[in-house]
Amino acid sequence: MNLPTENEMPDVPFTVEFTHRLRFTRDLFGNDAHTLIEVLDASDGQAPKVQFWLDEQVSLANPELKHRIQQFCARHPKAVQIAGNIQVVPGGEDVKNDIHVIERMLKCFNHADMDRRSYVIVIGGGAVLDAVGFAAAIAHRGLRLIRIPTTTLAQGDSGIGVKNSINLFQKKNWVGTFAVPWAVINDRKLVETLSDRDFCCGFSEAVKVSLLKSRKFFEHIHRDASAIRQRKAEAWPVIAESAQWHLRHITAGGDPFEMLEARPLDFGHWSAHKLETMTSFELRHGEAVAIGVAVDTIYSSMAHGLSSEDADRVLDCLDQLGLLLDHPALQRTDELFCGLEEFRQHLGGRLTVTMLDGIGQPIDVHAIDHDLMRLAISQVVARVGGSQSTT
Amino acid sequence: MNLPTENEMPDVPFTVEFTHRLRFTRDLFGNDAHTLIEVLDASDGQAPKVQFWLDEQVSLANPELKHRIQQFCARHPKAVQIAGNIQVVPGGEDVKNDIHVIERMLKCFNHADMDRRSYVIVIGGGAVLDAVGFAAAIAHRGLRLIRIPTTTLAQGDSGIGVKNSINLFQKKNWVGTFAVPWAVINDRKLVETLSDRDFCCGFSEAVKVSLLKSRKFFEHIHRDASAIRQRKAEAWPVIAESAQWHLRHITAGGDPFEMLEARPLDFGHWSAHKLETMTSFELRHGEAVAIGVAVDTIYSSMAHGLSSEDADRVLDCLDQLGLLLDHPALQRTDELFCGLEEFRQHLGGRLTVTMLDGIGQPIDVHAIDHDLMRLAISQVVARVGGSQSTT
Repeated sequence: MNLPTENEMPDVPFTVEFTHRLRFTRDLFGNDAHTLIEVLDASDGQAPKVQFWLDEQVSLANPELKHRIQQFCARHPKAVQIAGNIQVVPGGEDVKNDIHVIERMLKCFNHADMDRRSYVIVIGGGAVLDAVGFAAAIAHRGLRLIRIPTTTLAQGDSGIGVKNSINLFQKKNWVGTFAVPWAVINDRKLVETLSDRDFCCGFSEAVKVSLLKSRKFFEHIHRDASAIRQRKAEAWPVIAESAQWHLRHITAGGDPFEMLEARPLDFGHWSAHKLETMTSFELRHGEAVAIGVAVDTIYSSMAHGLSSEDADRVLDCLDQLGLLLDHPALQRTDELFCGLEEFRQHLGGRLTVTMLDGIGQPIDVHAIDHDLMRLAISQVVARVGGSQSTT
Repeated sequence: MNLPTENEMPDVPFTVEFTHRLRFTRDLFGNDAHTLIEVLDASDGQAPKVQFWLDEQVSLANPELKHRIQQFCARHPKAVQIAGNIQVVPGGEDVKNDIHVIERMLKCFNHADMDRRSYVIVIGGGAVLDAVGFAAAIAHRGLRLIRIPTTTLAQGDSGIGVKNSINLFQKKNWVGTFAVPWAVINDRKLVETLSDRDFCCGFSEAVKVSLLKSRKFFEHIHRDASAIRQRKAEAWPVIAESAQWHLRHITAGGDPFEMLEARPLDFGHWSAHKLETMTSFELRHGEAVAIGVAVDTIYSSMAHGLSSEDADRVLDCLDQLGLLLDHPALQRTDELFCGLEEFRQHLGGRLTVTMLDGIGQPIDVHAIDHDLMRLAISQVVARVGGSQSTT
């Protein structure tokens, strides 16, 4: 080995290889069980240890789920060695706000002697995926995590990504890691029990990703928006395409661990995150994102290259999805604008917000004109009023 | 975009790019301050926030250090914006055994509004680097960490790596992450205040890496072993080369995040880790590693291709370094052998232990002959007795 001298040590770039496994099923613990079996690596010659963590809301909405999981494990003893009881944790932000739930997860992993080749299978909404994912990421520096998202939002967006987190100091996602899940399985049956409200609001992220990536995909969503709102079959290809755009962003976008200053998938999110905390999470994440997307779309048509016709199309699409929304918190613009600084702070460095120069043409901007943004907000609010008065 | 159909979703491999920055200095907070200035990225147009964390033992041994750090910051206001007081934490395993110290770190980061472009500079031995590194890795999913290792062991080995950890459930390193530090700076002056015991025992890791990577490097250490023990100038190139082999293993070895089953840098470590806990950390990590390396070297000469002449050379080298050691715990072989299972369990999968087919020729083995291992241990113990009687 030729060593550089001590005074001439170069920076050494290197890469780490990962694999992302995304699957789609119609009934994972029924006819599609083979999909789960296939992602579990039994190459050590024995069935791998698998521990199940379940979102309480999902468990209540699917009272037969625990039993079906147990049957699945019993039927496939060569593929699955269930590790301890099926664990149930609170859904929603509660699970991310309570550090003791994380402690409980670590204790359960340890009690079952889980190791880096064991699997944690988490079934739930985005918050439960985040919290269980964080615990799994730090135990032994990373157990294998299989995410089974149960909301349209997590299936099309957050569940696909490589992040996990919990909240600390009343700050959303203040603690977390980047960790590539072993696999993500989007199961259709698990989403069927969602309320209409939850079913629809996940599509705000699909609209968002379409605005960033593909005019064709946006037009597809716009065309099928009413059918999606009625939970017709048209909804599924949209979730699948949203998930795949997200996957492509992670695996081919060049910055999955967010080391650069821009974070394009967060279009519309500076206000969305803030609206969630301002409303004590009365607004769902998907609803807050719909508002944030609407606001930044109008702003993009005022300050950047997006045409007003396209901005109208975006708001019409959100309207048809049942997601053209207002909230009194939108009037508190000074407080809302603090969301810009919090958004900057999480990533660090200078403020970088994604706006639209056109549909499918994201741009990074480093300053927001507050007066223009107030105007954009008022236009969204007026439009909602108009929309509501006509329906 | 051509999307695969839902039923044909392929595994998607992808890579994440990192940069490792290793530097060597003689007096970091004196004449070599430019080295630290250069690794701090001030490209945002303002001095980055920097928070200092200091190992209590280092602070006590270098009473002027805090003042020198403050002077350094005061002299370079365009490069460094000091964030809060210089924090001091207990050194050694204490810091890794107390979850409340991690909580304190997170609170300090939050109080100073640290973000992903802020720097945590940690100055200390391996345990303090591990604990502060873990806290920095999970805050905002990763603050920038600059490690300044202050022991020969951390400078040549653990400080270079991409791991952090704390202990939980009385298990060493049970919690942690893989996280590439922003930079590692090996400063000579900070090592000078080490006790002779701590100075010497770090070289067991240099011997280890030489046995895995380079006969030439091993011969170099063997040749200079007495001079190193006397803390002569010959010690520094050995630390530097050990660090650089470690760096090369991380950046060019193909598995920095340990996703494969082998962990070659852990040669001699299955027993070393166990001896540390069996002796309640009365043995230093470097001392335990010296014993572990001696035992697995003899075992390699019995069960594998290492020649007995080479095994003799290794033990002679450790002897000259003052590291041919015995401990009563070595008699408790049944307990010691539990270390094999704990070693397997941390990584998961089947047992994989690195042994030597020759110097510079590591091999993976999946079973250990306990009788032969007992014999290897007894030979090391006998050799220590002989060695001690002649000195």
